[in-house]
Amino acid sequence: MQQKEPVTLSELATLVNGEVIGDPHILISGIGTIYEARPGQLVMAEDERKLKQALELKPTALLLPFELADKGAEVKGVIKVQNPRLAFARLLAYFAPQYSLPQGIHPEATVSPKAKLGKNVRVHARAVIEEGAQIGDGTWIWPGVYIGPDAVIGSDCLIYPNVVIRERVTIGDRVIIQPGAVIGSDGFGFVTVDGVHHKVPQIGTVEIGNDVEIGANTCIDRATVGKTVIGTGTKLDNLVQIGHNAEIGPYNLMAGMAGVAGSSRTGEYVTLAGKAGLAGHLTVAPKTVVAGGAIVASDVTEPGFLSGIPARPHREEMRAKATMRRVPELIKKQKELERKVAELTELLERLSAEAR
Amino acid sequence: MQQKEPVTLSELATLVNGEVIGDPHILISGIGTIYEARPGQLVMAEDERKLKQALELKPTALLLPFELADKGAEVKGVIKVQNPRLAFARLLAYFAPQYSLPQGIHPEATVSPKAKLGKNVRVHARAVIEEGAQIGDGTWIWPGVYIGPDAVIGSDCLIYPNVVIRERVTIGDRVIIQPGAVIGSDGFGFVTVDGVHHKVPQIGTVEIGNDVEIGANTCIDRATVGKTVIGTGTKLDNLVQIGHNAEIGPYNLMAGMAGVAGSSRTGEYVTLAGKAGLAGHLTVAPKTVVAGGAIVASDVTEPGFLSGIPARPHREEMRAKATMRRVPELIKKQKELERKVAELTELLERLSAEAR
Amino acid sequence: MQQKEPVTLSELATLVNGEVIGDPHILISGIGTIYEARPGQLVMAEDERKLKQALELKPTALLLPFELADKGAEVKGVIKVQNPRLAFARLLAYFAPQYSLPQGIHPEATVSPKAKLGKNVRVHARAVIEEGAQIGDGTWIWPGVYIGPDAVIGSDCLIYPNVVIRERVTIGDRVIIQPGAVIGSDGFGFVTVDGVHHKVPQIGTVEIGNDVEIGANTCIDRATVGKTVIGTGTKLDNLVQIGHNAEIGPYNLMAGMAGVAGSSRTGEYVTLAGKAGLAGHLTVAPKTVVAGGAIVASDVTEPGFLSGIPARPHREEMRAKATMRRVPELIKKQKELERKVAELTELLERLSAEAR
Repeated sequence: MQQKEPVTLSELATLVNGEVIGDPHILISGIGTIYEARPGQLVMAEDERKLKQALELKPTALLLPFELADKGAEVKGVIKVQNPRLAFARLLAYFAPQYSLPQGIHPEATVSPKAKLGKNVRVHARAVIEEGAQIGDGTWIWPGVYIGPDAVIGSDCLIYPNVVIRERVTIGDRVIIQPGAVIGSDGFGFVTVDGVHHKVPQIGTVEIGNDVEIGANTCIDRATVGKTVIGTGTKLDNLVQIGHNAEIGPYNLMAGMAGVAGSSRTGEYVTLAGKAGLAGHLTVAPKTVVAGGAIVASDVTEPGFLSGIPARPHREEMRAKATMRRVPELIKKQKELERKVAELTELLERLSAEAR
Repeated sequence: MQQKEPVTLSELATLVNGEVIGDPHILISGIGTIYEARPGQLVMAEDERKLKQALELKPTALLLPFELADKGAEVKGVIKVQNPRLAFARLLAYFAPQYSLPQGIHPEATVSPKAKLGKNVRVHARAVIEEGAQIGDGTWIWPGVYIGPDAVIGSDCLIYPNVVIRERVTIGDRVIIQPGAVIGSDGFGFVTVDGVHHKVPQIGTVEIGNDVEIGANTCIDRATVGKTVIGTGTKLDNLVQIGHNAEIGPYNLMAGMAGVAGSSRTGEYVTLAGKAGLAGHLTVAPKTVVAGGAIVASDVTEPGFLSGIPARPHREEMRAKATMRRVPELIKKQKELERKVAELTELLERLSAEAR
Repeated sequence: MQQKEPVTLSELATLVNGEVIGDPHILISGIGTIYEARPGQLVMAEDERKLKQALELKPTALLLPFELADKGAEVKGVIKVQNPRLAFARLLAYFAPQYSLPQGIHPEATVSPKAKLGKNVRVHARAVIEEGAQIGDGTWIWPGVYIGPDAVIGSDCLIYPNVVIRERVTIGDRVIIQPGAVIGSDGFGFVTVDGVHHKVPQIGTVEIGNDVEIGANTCIDRATVGKTVIGTGTKLDNLVQIGHNAEIGPYNLMAGMAGVAGSSRTGEYVTLAGKAGLAGHLTVAPKTVVAGGAIVASDVTEPGFLSGIPARPHREEMRAKATMRRVPELIKKQKELERKVAELTELLERLSAEAR
């Protein structure tokens, strides 16, 4: 592991196109959080509530958006920037402890002589690369990874330990795959004849765009025919399931345990929160956001925020739940009405008898 | 990879016991989908809607059920069959690119001299087979697979990369296990004494029937004592969880992310859709179907289609949801009634005063 | 595999501080269940219903709580104890078939000369241990395990096949990690600028306390900065997801497919049933219990039993569902009221006309 030496606040400010308020010479040794920061650490606070919490730690320095920069006056040094989260990401990259795989092919890796490796590819111990596989320049392959025959992997990818990429899968450039993920497993397809489920062979493949990230133990099934697609720049969290022939659009975000059943298609910028699901054979409009645990059971033709099982516009779902809370009052009032109507009836009968 | 040469439509028809309408000599090179088909590819359409979509692609040939065969007249050649999905599965198998593992035991596999391997077993690099394990004839073991001591695996199984099968698990014939699945992990059993959770040792095992398929990263826990059972011909999708001592009946279908808690038992032909769950210690009647995301919390004594959390007959669930939608109207009408009753009361009081 | 020789009932009773009723000399060869017990096996029944079921098997011996001990008179021998589940756990440990890894470092393991291994550490074939990693005394590492640089693992841990533990993760003593689990994968953090999701580097780590158990294919993400924490004595089942910077308290129990989103914190003795979830950035009070499939969407300030999506106190949720079932009756009664009010109005109009 290599760790960065402490660096002045002004050097960090330059790194993020920020401006220093206070002492530009303070030495910063790393990044803290709003819950815990050691002396020498810089803390990011993107809103007033977080700033308040951060100030309680009396941090050495703060990273703040323009509009809050004045409120950090009690701290020795502040870097002010337009987008503190983006600046934060850059500082994290700067301070990240550096680990690198051994150069070249580890003697205990199993690489087919018929695989085609680019320049500066690193393959660690116990990885297996089958014949016909292609690995782009600068890609790193951790231990225990399996890359099947004729799989094609782009440049500058990080394939973490024990990932499985089966035959003929294609993967773009700068793709990151967290440990244990499986790409190209058989889709779940059977045809039942006389009570026996016969396997429908899954002879298609998976195509993953550039700049995709795939979470730990996530599974992406290969297509029956054709391909399952993950669009450019899409990010999948851990334990996500993508069914065969699904086509996930570009720049989607799918949080942990989200699932997309077979043959569904999402537009660009679709977001699934944790444990959300899409049933099969659906089309989901660009920019749709699905709440945690919601299950979309029919096409989504207009972007919006959906929740519930089956999912519907969140506002409707909330109104329905609010309405439900009024039912006990309805029951109570109905009893009163019944009593009153009975009284009226009795009174009226008496009156009408008297009138006769 | 070996790929099939193009073949005439009539040869394919023979393969699936179908009948050719149109030109039997057209050469077919592969299978397309209703979304994408290259020249030379055959497309299957099982219903009118799909046929309509398929025709837009102007495919070289179609695979159709008897009742639609006439409607493919504009296409050069049609194969008509009784069960197009079954025929489709056969054609996929025919056109599937062939990959085979190296014969015998790879020099970089770790196989105990006390393991017992059948004829034509293939064990690829980096697989580990422990002492006392038995592998049936013709079974293939991919890289990174772990087979624990005394595990017994049947004939003609496919065990994909990085699957873990722990000690004493038994697996039938023709079982397919997708990458990363874990069979025989400890069940989740603890006894809490004075605030500390003590492990209940899980000394049972798992028994998997013939013709079972298990999805990628799916987990099947071993029993506390006795065995967890997966019945003959049952198919589990990816990321499915089967708890200890569960007994899954024959010919069940469990889609992605379905879960069965400990000691529950399903009859034959039970289907769990994606993300569905069974609580523990339940009995579920044969042929029960559970909708996506539903959670069954009590015994199911009669087959039916269940949905909701907790799950109940789908028709009831739908009726309840429809009813809920009428509550706002109820509230509105109740207000009207209250107003009318107040008017009546006032009128009656006036009348009764006048009458006096 | 080594299996225990049969042993007398009185010897077993001594092992669990129990008392024998009946013949202390019966030989016991193992443990059965209330569904299946072979001659020579002892069966545990903790309540009357289970005892009734156990007696139908005519087992050789029973393990019973004090209050039921008399009801086992028809069986040859009974061990009576205060806590039958705890005694059961001890007997299972006694009868557990013993498997042990080969001593020392397997020649086909890949262990960095710069890793630091304690006494009696066993590392099996194909495991990889990177430089700077430390493994405590008596810890066992199965095949296919990856232990990243600078990771620190305590004493007497069991790390099952194909587990991945990434760089700098720290793990306590007596921790058990089931196959395929991933500890220290990158948290799911991105900052979106001009429509592109940029990775927020995850430079923190994971800290796992003593006596923790982690289920098969479960994922625990590393923190953005700082650490993700799993408290002492906590047990996670299979396919559980723990997001970055989450802090799980001591002695929590999380069943299969439960999920905790980033930065949430649980007190001690929190229980999540199967498929339950916590949204991100929440605080959950000690001893809170969340029902299967429920999703907690806001802070839980008082312990209680929660269910539903979003989760609320189970009693409220049940009352709301019961109330919903009364809506059809409400609709019916409202129609009656409307009819009666219409009648009254008519009658009253007539009366009032007559009175004029």
